[in-house]
Amino acid sequence: MCPRHAGAWNMLTAAVCMALLGCLQAQELQGHVSVILLGATGDLARKYLWQGLFQLYLEEAGKGHSFRFHGTALTSTKQGQEVIAKVLESLSCPRDTAPGRCAELKAQFQQLSEYRRLKTPEDYLALSKDIEARVQHEGLQEVGRIFYFSVPPFAYAEIARSISSSCRPGPGAWLRVVLEKPFGHDHRSAQQLAAELGSFFQEEEMYRVDHYLGKQVVAQILPFRDQNRKALDGLWNRHHVERVEIIMKETVDAEGRTSFYEEYGVIGDVLQNHLTEILMLVAMELPLNLSSSEAVLEHKLQAFRALRGLQRGSAVVGQYQAYRGQVRRELQKPDSFHSLTPTFAGVLVHIDNLRWEGVPFILMSGKALDERVGYVRILFKDQAYCAQSEKRWVPAQSHCLPQQIIFYIGHGELGGPAVLVSRNLFRPSLPSASWKEVEGQPGLRLFGRPLSDYYAYSPVREQDAYSILISRIFHRRKDSFITMENLLASWVFWTPLLDSLAHEVPRLYPGGAENGHLLDFEFSGSHLSFSQPPLEQLVLGPDSAPMPSDFQVLRAKYRGSPLISAWPEELIARLAGDIEAAAVQAVKRFGKFHLALSGGSSPVALFQQLAMGHYGFPWAHTHLWLVDERCVPLWDPESNFQGLQAHLLQHVRVPYYNVHPMPVHRRQRLCAEEDQGAQAYAEEISTLVTNSSFDLVLLGMGTDGHTASLFPQSPVGLDGKQLVVLTTSPSSPHRRMSLSLPVINRAHKVAVLVMGRMKREIAMLVSRVGREPRKWPISGVLPDSGQLVWYMDYDAFLG
Amino acid sequence: MCPRHAGAWNMLTAAVCMALLGCLQAQELQGHVSVILLGATGDLARKYLWQGLFQLYLEEAGKGHSFRFHGTALTSTKQGQEVIAKVLESLSCPRDTAPGRCAELKAQFQQLSEYRRLKTPEDYLALSKDIEARVQHEGLQEVGRIFYFSVPPFAYAEIARSISSSCRPGPGAWLRVVLEKPFGHDHRSAQQLAAELGSFFQEEEMYRVDHYLGKQVVAQILPFRDQNRKALDGLWNRHHVERVEIIMKETVDAEGRTSFYEEYGVIGDVLQNHLTEILMLVAMELPLNLSSSEAVLEHKLQAFRALRGLQRGSAVVGQYQAYRGQVRRELQKPDSFHSLTPTFAGVLVHIDNLRWEGVPFILMSGKALDERVGYVRILFKDQAYCAQSEKRWVPAQSHCLPQQIIFYIGHGELGGPAVLVSRNLFRPSLPSASWKEVEGQPGLRLFGRPLSDYYAYSPVREQDAYSILISRIFHRRKDSFITMENLLASWVFWTPLLDSLAHEVPRLYPGGAENGHLLDFEFSGSHLSFSQPPLEQLVLGPDSAPMPSDFQVLRAKYRGSPLISAWPEELIARLAGDIEAAAVQAVKRFGKFHLALSGGSSPVALFQQLAMGHYGFPWAHTHLWLVDERCVPLWDPESNFQGLQAHLLQHVRVPYYNVHPMPVHRRQRLCAEEDQGAQAYAEEISTLVTNSSFDLVLLGMGTDGHTASLFPQSPVGLDGKQLVVLTTSPSSPHRRMSLSLPVINRAHKVAVLVMGRMKREIAMLVSRVGREPRKWPISGVLPDSGQLVWYMDYDAFLG
Repeated sequence: MCPRHAGAWNMLTAAVCMALLGCLQAQELQGHVSVILLGATGDLARKYLWQGLFQLYLEEAGKGHSFRFHGTALTSTKQGQEVIAKVLESLSCPRDTAPGRCAELKAQFQQLSEYRRLKTPEDYLALSKDIEARVQHEGLQEVGRIFYFSVPPFAYAEIARSISSSCRPGPGAWLRVVLEKPFGHDHRSAQQLAAELGSFFQEEEMYRVDHYLGKQVVAQILPFRDQNRKALDGLWNRHHVERVEIIMKETVDAEGRTSFYEEYGVIGDVLQNHLTEILMLVAMELPLNLSSSEAVLEHKLQAFRALRGLQRGSAVVGQYQAYRGQVRRELQKPDSFHSLTPTFAGVLVHIDNLRWEGVPFILMSGKALDERVGYVRILFKDQAYCAQSEKRWVPAQSHCLPQQIIFYIGHGELGGPAVLVSRNLFRPSLPSASWKEVEGQPGLRLFGRPLSDYYAYSPVREQDAYSILISRIFHRRKDSFITMENLLASWVFWTPLLDSLAHEVPRLYPGGAENGHLLDFEFSGSHLSFSQPPLEQLVLGPDSAPMPSDFQVLRAKYRGSPLISAWPEELIARLAGDIEAAAVQAVKRFGKFHLALSGGSSPVALFQQLAMGHYGFPWAHTHLWLVDERCVPLWDPESNFQGLQAHLLQHVRVPYYNVHPMPVHRRQRLCAEEDQGAQAYAEEISTLVTNSSFDLVLLGMGTDGHTASLFPQSPVGLDGKQLVVLTTSPSSPHRRMSLSLPVINRAHKVAVLVMGRMKREIAMLVSRVGREPRKWPISGVLPDSGQLVWYMDYDAFLG
Repeated sequence: MCPRHAGAWNMLTAAVCMALLGCLQAQELQGHVSVILLGATGDLARKYLWQGLFQLYLEEAGKGHSFRFHGTALTSTKQGQEVIAKVLESLSCPRDTAPGRCAELKAQFQQLSEYRRLKTPEDYLALSKDIEARVQHEGLQEVGRIFYFSVPPFAYAEIARSISSSCRPGPGAWLRVVLEKPFGHDHRSAQQLAAELGSFFQEEEMYRVDHYLGKQVVAQILPFRDQNRKALDGLWNRHHVERVEIIMKETVDAEGRTSFYEEYGVIGDVLQNHLTEILMLVAMELPLNLSSSEAVLEHKLQAFRALRGLQRGSAVVGQYQAYRGQVRRELQKPDSFHSLTPTFAGVLVHIDNLRWEGVPFILMSGKALDERVGYVRILFKDQAYCAQSEKRWVPAQSHCLPQQIIFYIGHGELGGPAVLVSRNLFRPSLPSASWKEVEGQPGLRLFGRPLSDYYAYSPVREQDAYSILISRIFHRRKDSFITMENLLASWVFWTPLLDSLAHEVPRLYPGGAENGHLLDFEFSGSHLSFSQPPLEQLVLGPDSAPMPSDFQVLRAKYRGSPLISAWPEELIARLAGDIEAAAVQAVKRFGKFHLALSGGSSPVALFQQLAMGHYGFPWAHTHLWLVDERCVPLWDPESNFQGLQAHLLQHVRVPYYNVHPMPVHRRQRLCAEEDQGAQAYAEEISTLVTNSSFDLVLLGMGTDGHTASLFPQSPVGLDGKQLVVLTTSPSSPHRRMSLSLPVINRAHKVAVLVMGRMKREIAMLVSRVGREPRKWPISGVLPDSGQLVWYMDYDAFLG
């Protein structure tokens, strides 16, 4: 079968696909298919999965292959049979089926369906034997088995072992196992689960369900982008997209589910999976050929790789007020118990590629909100000026009114799924067999405009997500499922945020319409914050607690020099501000600013801060030097220069010739003495930097007391006339180039940035020792006539 | 006198200014001041200037200096006296003056005012003598003379000569001459006028009036920015400003003024002066001390320097339909006469500094529009997400509703000047003595929101612009006037656009509300276009004329190779597209793309196109090489590399180590043979570029047939094994470094870009000659096995 959404424009592709793929698949499907629904008596199965299987049967049974459906569970055979009988009785046929025909179809399906208890490996073996016997008896050929895991995750491993050892189909037939989330609650647990399942199944055998990918509107995102390529090609990028909102609001709360919710929270429950998947569908590059699952999955993975890492400041979290009590009741916790689990989260995501750089993607979900609605809203930039007074604007013609595309997933004021496109944008193309124009609803306004301002389409026939996904499993459309790589990429993205939120107290909100503007949030750069001060403070009065805007910066002395200590974000903000001030002053006085920067992870946050927040920084007159470098090519990810480039140079306008990487790579050799790289760098410094005195040198401090690339127990670079030296690091890559201590001490300003708990011990030690650079090179930092300032975060300083 | 707008925050500064400047000025003003109003019987004088002088008298006469006002013109004494008498009779006093007191004040002013005919140098001398005699007779000291030129510009020179030679005050007293626009109609005429006037007056003696700078709201822009620094500091930049609109709409047309209008058009009449001045007030960096005219003027000039050059695509122009007939009637033109003068213009301005980069500044003005209104609108980015359904938003609290600041200059629905700030932004601070809150007007909506959504302030007392400016002349506030540098900077900015529009047919519009959406325009990157196809085409039907979106690209052969010819913008778009396609292909096949670029002016447009429109370009895998370079430091404005950096590198993300400038500057010497720069570049090419075959080489062609830096009549670089050579150019700077012909011909693709009428002759010639590189180096370009494509615009190819 060729995918339905291969539009007219790629008729040729579609035809080829018909000829090749279609026939291949058709051949492959000839024969018998067994579907084993594990947990067949459970909620999900009764509500959606049996109906999905019936649907599959209706669509596929006439096409040359036979089916049998095995509902299984731990329940006794008799009880199970009763439940299943009831479920099968309540199945519904497509809307246009005559009642008699429906009864007939249901009877056929019931005939092919059975319940059996499946508990021990022997049960699985017996099932396998039964299938084989029946296939042989009926003269069929077995082509495959689908195992649908509708069971709690803790049961996965044992079932997987039993299937793999005792219930695999014979050679030539395929196995597909369908798994339901949650797939772990952080990167480690997801990896563990993946490894476990990976020991039983091949990746290609596994279908991880995110049922949002089966929702009609979500499943339409890529086909819509494909069928409207011509209109969207110029629009789907940072030059035209103002922002993207990916939203799932719920009115219900977590009551009755708190044991689950305490473990996952809103991020694990909704954002890491559903909203992230949608984000990818919007952001990924569109493959030329949508019918290739591999191409879709590969493009999706590429989009994951372009995600900018989340930080504590990337999210705001909340918890509805009743949650705490519900947890106490349901989990029998004492009155003193406080849960930090967020039931509301707003997250700002940025994608670091040329298509999306700078475009805010807002992901938001929460319980106990004022309405139930899910949507993806792509708002375009207003790049028009309308010469007439606004009262004369004609909505369908005025380019000054909002232009947006909304994938309305469901509920909300519209009451069901729809695709909306502003009439002043373009008339979208949707497959007319499956999408129809929405009828007008007078007075209804959506996203700031009346419904009549949109081309609005809804599905001709609303289909349940599980029916769609079951059909896609059957058709091996792996792109509608979560691959392991995809899953791990998502956890890699979310886990740092979850870690940094672990001790954050969520804002309390009353729930429903009472929330008012309390959960509104706003962003500046990549930092997100609530728009209003928290409710408690409003109640308690202004002097009850420090406001979030208060800088909590501590000033003290350390080794006789000024020390500035604060929480990491404030510390970085302060350091960036100080560097900017030094730059402005130097440029004012001398026309240029010579800044020498260290590599490593702490400066990355500083680079990002400088890149985003300091538009007054005189970059055009700033020279950037390296304090030290690893002997690797500049483009090696381990190169200090690479970090500087990725996090700072790409974002600001430093002239090319003001950038001075260390020449560690000359004549295709690394730090060869005879290539005189150190001498060349020293010469460059002498030529350009007056008196070889940098305006500012930024240093770090290693846990062994090293600074720059001057390591303990080596005399190289600690004194003498050399400005730049080659040194040896105890850790790989061993060879380094470094500024010498004398040139560092010649600087006008030296800033030492020390962050993290790992540095606590050395920070304590160094605070007490004298000037012993041979033991602790950092102790040798003492500018001849310049100023030394220590910047330490509370973790490093107070521990 | 300290300026009124020195707010509380800089009390200290104000105090110091009181102590120093204030006293100085007060001292200086003791004594007698003569004001000579030239053209005293004209329109402007009768309507505004006499009233302004009366105002000056009322404000200043009590402060220790005496005045005398000399109205002059060419009119006979008797007639002039009659006119002036009437004008003086109709002067009005401030609103709160008692009638009796008013009569008294007017009588005093009349006493001090006289009319005299001023025609010959002798008349000026006589006036001077009279002033001196009177001063002496009354025992006064003369401190200064103000000459207000309310005369047509053609009379400037003669009057200036007469004043300078015969009517300057004696030593110790100042001279101020006040000039009214127009100050030229392009850069050259403005320069000429400036030179002429400069031969009679010092720059500091001249006060060029742009009466918009005297409008209350315009005059308030800088003080507003100053007094609200705290709120605006974080907002007044590209991270927060979505766009700025600077608009002056008129309902009247040019009837009766077409002789003036034909010369200046809407750009010369409104945009070059009024709107540009306002643009500067919004965009300039705010000086620390607003009371320093020098600082204000210097910052304004800096903002001028940051303006990105305008191109043909930066503007849309229109002409109301009746204009043509009016011109024919008023200027006695035949029926066949067509005027190209725009009466409507929308222009998109970008400012290339870190504060404003990427923010669109929209300047628009026109006659025969649907309403009369002037405003500056600063619209902020919507950087909030509101968690509640929009029907629950509270306007004053919701950060999701538009946030804007509007300097409402006058007229329009509000009916007068006002400053508006969205209530969800911040509560502005304005001097309460002179600004009061606007009273509510139910039902009034402005810029998408009801008036009640704004903090809105209007002047307590509406003041005429000329009264304000006359007072500022008296107080030597030069920052309220146009300095020569400022004027020329503005013309430098506007003249290229005027030139490129000279042959553009403006879009015809019916005028008034009939315009509909016809004049709406929209932008993409820095390109502006009307949102709707022109009316004529709508009337004539779709096949009457090619649509603007039709590519008009001609394909042919030139010297046996493919030629692509088109209008410049299409040609550049096509070339950029071809380069991107080559890049994508090369990266796909080899993982990298080696692109060698030429310098010069034609590639600049290409660089801009690549930088703005090609976000799919694989920059991260592209190596950039130079085809040739001038022997100047890389940071020299003449360096080819500098052009590449300014127009391409600053805007895209090419890794540092993929950029390969030519090493023309080694060991602080330029192209010294012994520094082996050419050899080093050749080595770099051999090392990195497989087989030394660039993927694409972009060349130009000089009017003498040179290409790269290979010039006629020299054998260097035409053959042999050298990849890179040092050459000599006939034009300065003479020394060059260049790729050799053999390495060029080894490329996979060679594109030759030839643009402009200047190239027509050489293009014709080269089309006919054989392979004679010694005479015409370009004729030697013939890739060994690669592909050569010529890109010529119609001017170069068809002439």
